[in-house]
Amino acid sequence: MGTLHVDLGERSYPIYIERGLLAQAGSYFEQHQLGKKSPVLIVSDDNVAPLYLDVVVRSLEKQGYTVVTKVVPAGEQSKSLSVFEDVMTAAIEGGLDRKSAVVALGGGVIGDLAGFVAASYMRGVTFVQMPTTILAHDSSVGGKVAVNHPLAKNMIGVFHQPAMVLYDIDTLMTLPPREIKAGLSEMIKHGLIWDKAFADWCEEHSGALLQLKPDVIQYGLTRGCEIKAQIVGSDETEQGLRAILNLGHTLGHAFEATAGYGQLLHGEAIAIGMAAAAKLAGYRGASSTLYEDTVTKLRSFDLPVIIPADMSEESILAAMMHDKKFKENKLVFILPTEIGKVEIVSDVTVEQVRQVISELKEV
Amino acid sequence: MGTLHVDLGERSYPIYIERGLLAQAGSYFEQHQLGKKSPVLIVSDDNVAPLYLDVVVRSLEKQGYTVVTKVVPAGEQSKSLSVFEDVMTAAIEGGLDRKSAVVALGGGVIGDLAGFVAASYMRGVTFVQMPTTILAHDSSVGGKVAVNHPLAKNMIGVFHQPAMVLYDIDTLMTLPPREIKAGLSEMIKHGLIWDKAFADWCEEHSGALLQLKPDVIQYGLTRGCEIKAQIVGSDETEQGLRAILNLGHTLGHAFEATAGYGQLLHGEAIAIGMAAAAKLAGYRGASSTLYEDTVTKLRSFDLPVIIPADMSEESILAAMMHDKKFKENKLVFILPTEIGKVEIVSDVTVEQVRQVISELKEV
Repeated sequence: MGTLHVDLGERSYPIYIERGLLAQAGSYFEQHQLGKKSPVLIVSDDNVAPLYLDVVVRSLEKQGYTVVTKVVPAGEQSKSLSVFEDVMTAAIEGGLDRKSAVVALGGGVIGDLAGFVAASYMRGVTFVQMPTTILAHDSSVGGKVAVNHPLAKNMIGVFHQPAMVLYDIDTLMTLPPREIKAGLSEMIKHGLIWDKAFADWCEEHSGALLQLKPDVIQYGLTRGCEIKAQIVGSDETEQGLRAILNLGHTLGHAFEATAGYGQLLHGEAIAIGMAAAAKLAGYRGASSTLYEDTVTKLRSFDLPVIIPADMSEESILAAMMHDKKFKENKLVFILPTEIGKVEIVSDVTVEQVRQVISELKEV
Repeated sequence: MGTLHVDLGERSYPIYIERGLLAQAGSYFEQHQLGKKSPVLIVSDDNVAPLYLDVVVRSLEKQGYTVVTKVVPAGEQSKSLSVFEDVMTAAIEGGLDRKSAVVALGGGVIGDLAGFVAASYMRGVTFVQMPTTILAHDSSVGGKVAVNHPLAKNMIGVFHQPAMVLYDIDTLMTLPPREIKAGLSEMIKHGLIWDKAFADWCEEHSGALLQLKPDVIQYGLTRGCEIKAQIVGSDETEQGLRAILNLGHTLGHAFEATAGYGQLLHGEAIAIGMAAAAKLAGYRGASSTLYEDTVTKLRSFDLPVIIPADMSEESILAAMMHDKKFKENKLVFILPTEIGKVEIVSDVTVEQVRQVISELKEV
């Protein structure tokens, strides 16, 4: 426990999940033979940097690395081409060369932004992830990096695998409770799509997970990353299987968009989306206990499982209609068949979607 | 002759070099099983589009493809993140999806720009090159795509191989004579670094090449692409051997920068750079005829081999000093050992560079 290998042939990499990793960053860099002649760029945001940037910089400098830093505003708005260009400017002015590394110190936004910089600076340099959120256990596996286009999220990006991930679980201790809960939603998802035993374990340990009990959160993150790594390893560039990671996301994205991005946290939206997927599965013949069991697991984390009262059926459908595939009646849904197993289906009807929205609506 | 395969494992692709290809674009798309359900985006510039965009669009539409187009201003200034974002907007508004193709119809700038869009739109879609310049015989092989950062050229990019290259040599007929000459400079370079017989052939056929005699230019482009493909195939991401493609470029870039970009065409600057490299080789013991032979070949195309009078030694050295490696006395030079063979050296001294500049200076 504590180290996990993501197996992607010559792009394989380790994920270290432990306490106190940030203060040892320099040793890990050395151990992975990252060159000391080329400057390292650490990208972080103005929430995370005041807490953890110094410790990482000191650790790298102590081992003889030259470090430059770039702190961007916290939040989704930093995933823009304009902030991307600012980070590129910092990389050039800092003298980064082809043997340099770019480090993402932060949550999903920083990982995506810094990852796209690493992927495209001088046609690609080494990328190191240092996630500081629970949600990032999901985004730090898989190599998806991107920025947003004003017209659509994550539209501009590539696949670029990190050389290593240093997941210091001490950083989670400063997260607000609501973010912890929402982050755990993706962990539960990994159980629901792949591993009943892990889904049950999550439910049994929900209290300890919410309290971030170190041993428990370490195991949960390790197993969550491991499941994602297995799926990604067999489908690196999302040709098929990888789609199952989107359990709860089809409707979840519509809930997020309808609520206004940021109103409903991503993890909360997909929790409702997973409840909806279980109900949709029921319409198609899945066991009647599947929905109950799914909802019980989500509720054990106090995650939402019904659609907020102020969100109208029409506005949710309107958000989905932006998806060309939905208009053509070809929207892909990931539906559970039992706890720990899902299937990819493309024949859910608009009527079934209406029905599930109406049944899950808060009244 | 006419078709060339670039061997890069699962990223292998064909280059078709023939007359009249643009009017058959639709058939080639079909033959390569590019899907018809997803829109195709053609990117071109306002010099090329009036001449060739219609014929490509008609050919694709005739075969049942949906086509959207984006025409950007001709010239290096279109290789910016802001034009890149405009092309992305066109892609999104045109409804491109993951199975779409992005086509570059134009010279090197369009290839680099559209290629980076193809590489990063929804994390990568199919890329098709339709080069319309001689210089593009060089840039269409190798998969390097990029845009410029205000502080440095080609700084933001990735490697993204095309699915195919349709090189219609009829499009060359509308090129200005100076561009033809400058484009042939890279063709000669491919002979000088790799194949004495081809270098000799180029010299013997310089007249026919400058006149764009179809059979001759077709052979020259095919052999030039083939040499580059062999080098790239053994070093796709520029770890070592690929550096030999930079013969004449170390000094060439300094000449370009000193003259002001666009004053000296790229091919002209590297012609002087190749003459300088041969002279530098002489200082280090290469045969005394090497420089004479190199200059004779370049002069047969009426390419410049001496440094313009208005360019001072100090300004050239200043341009080179921007290169960190030069300051550390570690600038890498590609130097010929004989016609058709080069070596990579890193111990050329600043004094030798001063001497070659002074010897090649127009007085």
